[in-house]
Amino acid sequence: LAQRLQGIPPTVFTQMSALAQRTGAVNLGQGFPDEDGPASVLERAAAALREGRNQYAPGTGVPELREAVARHQQRHHGIDLDPATEVCVTTGATEGVAAALLALVDPGDEVLLLEPWYDSYAAMVQVAGGVRRGVTLRAPDFRLDAAALEAAVTPRTRLLLLNTPHNPTGTVLTRAELEAVAEVVRRHALLVVTDEVYEHLVFDGHRHVPLATLPGMRERVLTLSSVGKSWSLTGWKVGWATGPAHLVSALLAAKQWLTFTSGAPLQPAVAHALDAEWEWPRRLAVDLQRRRDLLCEGLAAAGLEPRVPEGTYFATTDVSHLGWDDGLAFCLALPERAGVVAIPTQGFHDSPAGDHLVRWAFCKTDAVVTEGVRRLAAAE
Amino acid sequence: LAQRLQGIPPTVFTQMSALAQRTGAVNLGQGFPDEDGPASVLERAAAALREGRNQYAPGTGVPELREAVARHQQRHHGIDLDPATEVCVTTGATEGVAAALLALVDPGDEVLLLEPWYDSYAAMVQVAGGVRRGVTLRAPDFRLDAAALEAAVTPRTRLLLLNTPHNPTGTVLTRAELEAVAEVVRRHALLVVTDEVYEHLVFDGHRHVPLATLPGMRERVLTLSSVGKSWSLTGWKVGWATGPAHLVSALLAAKQWLTFTSGAPLQPAVAHALDAEWEWPRRLAVDLQRRRDLLCEGLAAAGLEPRVPEGTYFATTDVSHLGWDDGLAFCLALPERAGVVAIPTQGFHDSPAGDHLVRWAFCKTDAVVTEGVRRLAAAE
Ligand SMILES: CSCCC(=O)C(=O)O
Ligand SMILES: CSCCC(=O)C(=O)O
Repeated sequence: LAQRLQGIPPTVFTQMSALAQRTGAVNLGQGFPDEDGPASVLERAAAALREGRNQYAPGTGVPELREAVARHQQRHHGIDLDPATEVCVTTGATEGVAAALLALVDPGDEVLLLEPWYDSYAAMVQVAGGVRRGVTLRAPDFRLDAAALEAAVTPRTRLLLLNTPHNPTGTVLTRAELEAVAEVVRRHALLVVTDEVYEHLVFDGHRHVPLATLPGMRERVLTLSSVGKSWSLTGWKVGWATGPAHLVSALLAAKQWLTFTSGAPLQPAVAHALDAEWEWPRRLAVDLQRRRDLLCEGLAAAGLEPRVPEGTYFATTDVSHLGWDDGLAFCLALPERAGVVAIPTQGFHDSPAGDHLVRWAFCKTDAVVTEGVRRLAAAE
Repeated sequence: LAQRLQGIPPTVFTQMSALAQRTGAVNLGQGFPDEDGPASVLERAAAALREGRNQYAPGTGVPELREAVARHQQRHHGIDLDPATEVCVTTGATEGVAAALLALVDPGDEVLLLEPWYDSYAAMVQVAGGVRRGVTLRAPDFRLDAAALEAAVTPRTRLLLLNTPHNPTGTVLTRAELEAVAEVVRRHALLVVTDEVYEHLVFDGHRHVPLATLPGMRERVLTLSSVGKSWSLTGWKVGWATGPAHLVSALLAAKQWLTFTSGAPLQPAVAHALDAEWEWPRRLAVDLQRRRDLLCEGLAAAGLEPRVPEGTYFATTDVSHLGWDDGLAFCLALPERAGVVAIPTQGFHDSPAGDHLVRWAFCKTDAVVTEGVRRLAAAE
């Protein structure tokens, strides 16, 4: 195995979903819904298959999807984009992260990450030869400490890889927090890659603010999102990168060699989702909020008082309240103890801040969430 | 732009397809067919969309596709594989190449490539920090010179990236040639990645021999293929890597961070293609052979006597016969001169061997091929 990959463990989500399958446990681990997205989007994909949309899409994506992404950014965020040069379709946000880091990070460059991070961020920083610097969102409220961000910057800092709404903590960065981020970015002339795949999944009137909309950010920020989470089609792996042409073309310079292009018959259906089904994610968010509450009440009843998330699919709890000081050990024992799978967030930290934190997904059906918390309450 | 990507031009296929679109020229450039693959495969994908196959596939691919790939390798090549550990689904062979090189090549490692190469090979060798060593398949017959291969090996050589049937030359390596390759691989304990996406598209009774079937090769060879070329579904970007568990898991170690997984609703349909439509590529090859002949006769009539390809979608000609000493200049002038787009293979060489070579695709309809060669014959 090449050095760039040494010491990186296999993605915990695969490991935990395999554990769920093997033990028949209720899977509150990997973040994917039990129910698929809009029927009209599925029908549009079926039609595209029959209409001959089965050969290579252009490397940047089919024009109708690039145009729909531009309309999406305008409609929801007031961002104007040229679909020809400022939008690139990717194989999910995961490929966006991989391509952006390969394109923008040289060996030795430092990359700021919110800690806990999504596991592919840390892996791809290492693959690119970069050095990660975590800025911890600390329990119990998981807010961003702008002074800690500023303190993490060095002369070698090249890039900030941001994520809001934030997985796994469920924090939605406020405008004030993002203004503090923008201040640091401007002061040190950083580049930013921002993963906003949960942009529509926010609760209780919290609002997602794209960093790109803040003063001075448009030229410095590459924004990633995807159809998977907002339209409940995680398996399609169709995402997009938007931003200034210089950053989009840098991403494309890497991406063309990673997959060239993907999902040709799915791309017209994603365009349909963004246009005709643009209100669907809002309804999903309302429904998810109800399931969030089901989960959070059940966790509290089981002695695992959670931080109530402002967005995303996930709630986080501190398992030291149940006498466990190791979240990974807790999660490995949980299928046998309780018949439930959850995700330890330990591996998403360098600091010990995550040692007893565990993430629970509520993107599952009411029945699954209810059964999960029933089992937790019944466990020894 | 990070150093690893500097000096790599954008993929010539995108450039040339854009030129075709802009000028309305007949596109004999990028290798994709004008007609889609089997209707039953399209129907299976449409059914999978409705049957709820829309959430994340496992990182290695859905079990039914891994099992179908194993059956495919057994049926066509007599290779036995464990679908759990020796098969990994990829986002086309392109992602297979990217993941394999990131997983197996350290900075400074030398990688042997057949010259001319497919452009992503050279790009990804550079991205991985490797050093490429070309072994030229020389006009007019484009055979592999085993002595040249042996001579290109140094103590730093780590990997051979092979491609047979070979794009762009149309050479199908013979068993004798592959035995000579295997000899070099064994002698120097090399690893091999072999791109066999044209495995079913061979003509005139030529047979594709997978390198993995030769003595001592099973443990050293990672084989890449895909549904795109053989089942005329290039836009689906579903491929697979097969080989010993240690190489497949190395590839997966990189691939999980590039895309994680992709094309969930397409994967069951690809399994159907490999099983129920397993004879389809043979019929395609028969039909392609006819179109090859149409193209080759037309090229000859236009003064561009081609090497008649043994496999693939492509024929190669030497444009110096028409007084052009620069294939790229020829191809850039061709839309205006003749209303046709073709691919210069110059950029796929380090040596000058490709300076006046041009590649023509015959995976297009009879009407397109006929119109293309008519225009060439009519050009000044
Ligand atoms: C790509 S598998 C993980 C899915 C996900 O986004 C998560 O569970 O955090
Ligand atoms: C990935 S675009 C190029 C398609 C192809 O395989 C070729 O034309 O050689």
